[in-house]
Amino acid sequence: MTGGLTMWAARALSRALRAYFTSAPCPRPSQPPKVSIRDALVSQNPRGENVKVQGWVRSVRSQKEVLFLHINDGSSLEHLQIVADPSLDGCDLTFGSSVEVQGVLVKSPYKKQNVELKADKIEVIGHCDSKTFPFKYKERYPLQYIRHYPHLRCRTNALGSILRVRSEATDAIHSFFKANGYLHIHTPVITSNDCEGAGELFQVEPSSKVKEPGKNFFDVPAFLTVSAQLHLEVMSGAFTQVFTFGPTFRAENSQSRRHLAEFYMVEAEMSFVESLQDIMQVMETLFKATTEAVLSNCPEDVELLHKFLAPGQKDKLEHMLKNKFLIISYTEAVEILKKASQNFTFTPKWGIDLQTEHEKYLVEYGGNIPVFVINYPFDLKPFYMRDNEDEPQHTVAAVDLLVPGVGELFGGSLREERFHLLQQRLARLGLTDTYQWYLDLRRFGSVPHGGFGMGFERYLQCILGVDNIKDVIPFPRFSHSCLL
Amino acid sequence: MTGGLTMWAARALSRALRAYFTSAPCPRPSQPPKVSIRDALVSQNPRGENVKVQGWVRSVRSQKEVLFLHINDGSSLEHLQIVADPSLDGCDLTFGSSVEVQGVLVKSPYKKQNVELKADKIEVIGHCDSKTFPFKYKERYPLQYIRHYPHLRCRTNALGSILRVRSEATDAIHSFFKANGYLHIHTPVITSNDCEGAGELFQVEPSSKVKEPGKNFFDVPAFLTVSAQLHLEVMSGAFTQVFTFGPTFRAENSQSRRHLAEFYMVEAEMSFVESLQDIMQVMETLFKATTEAVLSNCPEDVELLHKFLAPGQKDKLEHMLKNKFLIISYTEAVEILKKASQNFTFTPKWGIDLQTEHEKYLVEYGGNIPVFVINYPFDLKPFYMRDNEDEPQHTVAAVDLLVPGVGELFGGSLREERFHLLQQRLARLGLTDTYQWYLDLRRFGSVPHGGFGMGFERYLQCILGVDNIKDVIPFPRFSHSCLL
Repeated sequence: MTGGLTMWAARALSRALRAYFTSAPCPRPSQPPKVSIRDALVSQNPRGENVKVQGWVRSVRSQKEVLFLHINDGSSLEHLQIVADPSLDGCDLTFGSSVEVQGVLVKSPYKKQNVELKADKIEVIGHCDSKTFPFKYKERYPLQYIRHYPHLRCRTNALGSILRVRSEATDAIHSFFKANGYLHIHTPVITSNDCEGAGELFQVEPSSKVKEPGKNFFDVPAFLTVSAQLHLEVMSGAFTQVFTFGPTFRAENSQSRRHLAEFYMVEAEMSFVESLQDIMQVMETLFKATTEAVLSNCPEDVELLHKFLAPGQKDKLEHMLKNKFLIISYTEAVEILKKASQNFTFTPKWGIDLQTEHEKYLVEYGGNIPVFVINYPFDLKPFYMRDNEDEPQHTVAAVDLLVPGVGELFGGSLREERFHLLQQRLARLGLTDTYQWYLDLRRFGSVPHGGFGMGFERYLQCILGVDNIKDVIPFPRFSHSCLL
Repeated sequence: MTGGLTMWAARALSRALRAYFTSAPCPRPSQPPKVSIRDALVSQNPRGENVKVQGWVRSVRSQKEVLFLHINDGSSLEHLQIVADPSLDGCDLTFGSSVEVQGVLVKSPYKKQNVELKADKIEVIGHCDSKTFPFKYKERYPLQYIRHYPHLRCRTNALGSILRVRSEATDAIHSFFKANGYLHIHTPVITSNDCEGAGELFQVEPSSKVKEPGKNFFDVPAFLTVSAQLHLEVMSGAFTQVFTFGPTFRAENSQSRRHLAEFYMVEAEMSFVESLQDIMQVMETLFKATTEAVLSNCPEDVELLHKFLAPGQKDKLEHMLKNKFLIISYTEAVEILKKASQNFTFTPKWGIDLQTEHEKYLVEYGGNIPVFVINYPFDLKPFYMRDNEDEPQHTVAAVDLLVPGVGELFGGSLREERFHLLQQRLARLGLTDTYQWYLDLRRFGSVPHGGFGMGFERYLQCILGVDNIKDVIPFPRFSHSCLL
């Protein structure tokens, strides 16, 4: 617990108390002010404040002289210890039940916590039948077990911590871009574009109840977005730095631990950028700044997850944070793979996409420091990537960031801003008519620009060491599964 | 321009200069540091700093002795004035072209701006053919005209301002919830629920290219979400305050100025809340705090929009902000409507939903102060709303906030947390099997709770006075239209 955090919380507690006394319409001495458990826990010198806490019972120990309860309200991983006279224990105080407790915050005589609540009154708000509740007191369940209870799993310590980290990382990402002058853009979910040219799209139509047969609601086929890039490029013709952070979709029939049908992407686009270096700089800074924010704002949550899910992850993460990320070209990467003593399932060869096994090897080869791979074969990449006009190995200015445990975390590129080159490529692909609007962006005040996308769930997997992507998103969607 | 903002920007400028001198790998005297126009404009005492600015030309005036350019880079509504020797004007400096300008920031002798840039070098980066570019210098276009150019309209002053306000409001909403201890939850876009029981759903399936006939990708029919509420309720069984801010969908065949097929909702859910008062308090505070943040961070943008789109809107908004919002019951609302001298198309009657004309009348009746309407007829509302158990006029604890110019902006309710009452209602509706998981939330540690949703585009319409909802979202989607 840092001094700064403690001071922050002490202020929050005193604010809660003050707000109660100044803004309550009439004093109700029987209703002490409500405090969150997070705020209660970090009050360094409780001075016998009368407070009310509300939450869910995480343990009950009734002894002859004293009743101990642990209460959690989701505001922190730690529980608040309640100390009470055993007479306050009806038979309803069970693991999982919801309670309201009134009493006095005092310094705890026990080492495990700083404060505890001496209860005057304990009220069970909602019962919980221990027999049918799928989680039992003191049991630790593997993540794949609790995944069967999508409506209840947030009540476990592990998911509670993951969701607090997710919320904190979300906030840190917004703050990072705001502090660096980026405009936030809500790019559309429904689109008539197919950015990647991939076939794995979800199509959208009104449900059968309201659909008019043979007609498209939007007059054209409409899909769920696979990337916000083209829409961000529209914006980067007026704003020099833009970002978005929203859901993205792939109708991939995959059960992999790294794929979801619905996942979140952080995407940014920068105008007047002429080198991949500038883009990689932002990618690395975003990764490090977000991670530092998470580590300093959710230390207990991260510690729990590292300890129980991925021992050794703490050191691996520190290693990533303290080292400058590496940069190699795709061509160098292929050379490294060719020289490897390892036998790959897919033989490495210039012009072929890097496979998961290759990504893994390259990251280990680089000493488990994240590595940027740049300048990919022209023929492997979509039409919008900037031609490096090199030969004989013709490449585009693309970049992927590979990280330990996850593989590809970011993908980015400079975009082809030169009208004639873009026009030629679209013509070759037969896409000229479809992308007239995209050509317009180059027709009127075009600028060199580029950007990247980061898979947010993969980011969480990478920093927390969570093996399966289904455990870092509140409601995972994948083929054969859309629970709730 | 406030003093605080100026100081902030002066610091930003000096930071940019410092960063250049300390972190450039090798000094390149020919490449002065890049500054945004926003930062350049607010430097109070330019001391002849050498800088580089990049942006798009908004005006060119070539006089005999001097060339004046106005440059915009989207970081602010205001342009930076460039003063240069006419010899620097090639014939390419046209409205809409992109440029890079190097020179010295100096105090401007003109009253309209504080600083200007004395250019040493002007380079046109991307040409813009004035003849084919759909926007002309000095022309002011109605919003419905620029709506025809979804890929270029962000280059106009009006859309630039709207998008900056939208970004600022987004940030203010995230900050509000964070400061008040709410956890951010990414609720799913694809869902197998149908929260409102409405038929106007979009259904999702893999596009025809990859779809297997007769099979659902998710094994069940899947839809685009119409509300995050049920998913937030899951979370409110573990976290006492949660919120989400994401896209929401309706397959409504509507061309109204208040409806979109894809729009954004801010939704919050609070546990251990027993009264609508507590929910209304959060709604009102959210509205006012967000608006205050927008007004203080984007004053020029808001002023432009009020001035040209909605004269008088500034006063109307101040009126809303300085008054405590009103509260009336649905029953009182119907009485007021019945007594009205106005002839309504839909005759007001207890038990019938309020129509747009009724909402409008009620807001005017309340002196154009936003008004909460509470306790709606039981039979009008969905199964999850809390039964007030009153009679003979049976109501539920629902609340709508009506605001001037827009009508319904927020909707919320207490949720039925009592297992047996909820079970009875689901049974009557034949929904018991579908909502076993929802009943589980009441079976295990249920708590009184409630929440609300705010339509984000309607919020922007309300504060900015923008008549058509299609103009406050970057890429509007509605029936017959899904451009880009």
